Amino acid sequence: MAVITKKIQLNTKGDTDIIDITDRIQEELSKTALTSGITTVFVPGSTAGLTTVEYEPGLIADLRTYLEKIAPKSGAYQHNLRWHDGNGYAHIRASLLGPSISVPFIKGRLHLGTWQQVIFIDFDNRPRSRELLVQIIGE
Amino acid sequence: MAVITKKIQLNTKGDTDIIDITDRIQEELSKTALTSGITTVFVPGSTAGLTTVEYEPGLIADLRTYLEKIAPKSGAYQHNLRWHDGNGYAHIRASLLGPSISVPFIKGRLHLGTWQQVIFIDFDNRPRSRELLVQIIGE
Amino acid sequence: MAVITKKIQLNTKGDTDIIDITDRIQEELSKTALTSGITTVFVPGSTAGLTTVEYEPGLIADLRTYLEKIAPKSGAYQHNLRWHDGNGYAHIRASLLGPSISVPFIKGRLHLGTWQQVIFIDFDNRPRSRELLVQIIGE
Repeated sequence: MAVITKKIQLNTKGDTDIIDITDRIQEELSKTALTSGITTVFVPGSTAGLTTVEYEPGLIADLRTYLEKIAPKSGAYQHNLRWHDGNGYAHIRASLLGPSISVPFIKGRLHLGTWQQVIFIDFDNRPRSRELLVQIIGE
Repeated sequence: MAVITKKIQLNTKGDTDIIDITDRIQEELSKTALTSGITTVFVPGSTAGLTTVEYEPGLIADLRTYLEKIAPKSGAYQHNLRWHDGNGYAHIRASLLGPSISVPFIKGRLHLGTWQQVIFIDFDNRPRSRELLVQIIGE
Repeated sequence: MAVITKKIQLNTKGDTDIIDITDRIQEELSKTALTSGITTVFVPGSTAGLTTVEYEPGLIADLRTYLEKIAPKSGAYQHNLRWHDGNGYAHIRASLLGPSISVPFIKGRLHLGTWQQVIFIDFDNRPRSRELLVQIIGE
């Protein structure tokens, strides 16, 4: 059993930019000798989140549409009144979606469905450079 | 320390079918000799999710009602226009809820509340056969 | 590699009480000799949840506002009709947010963003005593 820490660098466009990071995670996993365990991906930051989706243009548009219904960009936010940075919606979406995802791996491969990709969503209202942590625990 | 992989087979009715899988997870955990650690349950697939709830008929109905408000079955989805399978709502609910849950265990037992059950929700718009992964890490 | 179990005791005001528990988790982590791994915090109970947020008064107010939109306290709940305890909204919010969070640590420190805190939210409609489990896996 071992813990191995990897990192993924991303440049995002912000504004609910939805990025398929499946191959990036698998690439980091494949650099280790581990064959079975859990990969936990975590974003240090409070305006982004992680989940899975079938990564096709229709659902990417839909996900943006329904997140906009839950916490609209132009909604009223105390955060915006205090800090004047206009990204209150980004914080709320990030808190609701959560900053991490845990994906099991077997025989060195992430155990995802055929039409299931791991996505990173940058909700912030400007382009960002992000560094995700990939904490791999296994044997 | 060890990683032990187990699987749970489920036949669901689809259409936001909410299934209590607590005993199934505990059963797989009890087959191992592990006494302390983390159990990560993961669904390979993009139209289902996992969380916990007090499993009683009132809340099962309520959970369906409020998920329907968040992403209505009859809502507009680009996914449906492209693929004509009518399950756009299922994908969006699944992405929002997330495909995994991690439950700690102590002395060989899942550390849940008395009125807290682990549920698998199949959002897809037809019956499905599902295979959940139970990745157990501990000692 | 080892698993170490810690607990955090909290007295909450209920009614979507949002509590910053970052220092409490770090304190438990620092009591161990582990330097790298995953910290999984879990609430045994079905009316509370965990996530991260930039912990400042504006966002705390906003998070309460948008959770109220998703599952209003005065909404219709079958749970309330059956059990007459009036906390149906608390159960639904808890199921949607989820009962756990996994935060990686490196060099003995939780790997959070500068403006990112781990929060425990007690949705129940009365003050509660809570005991969170902190399951630390690492080396």
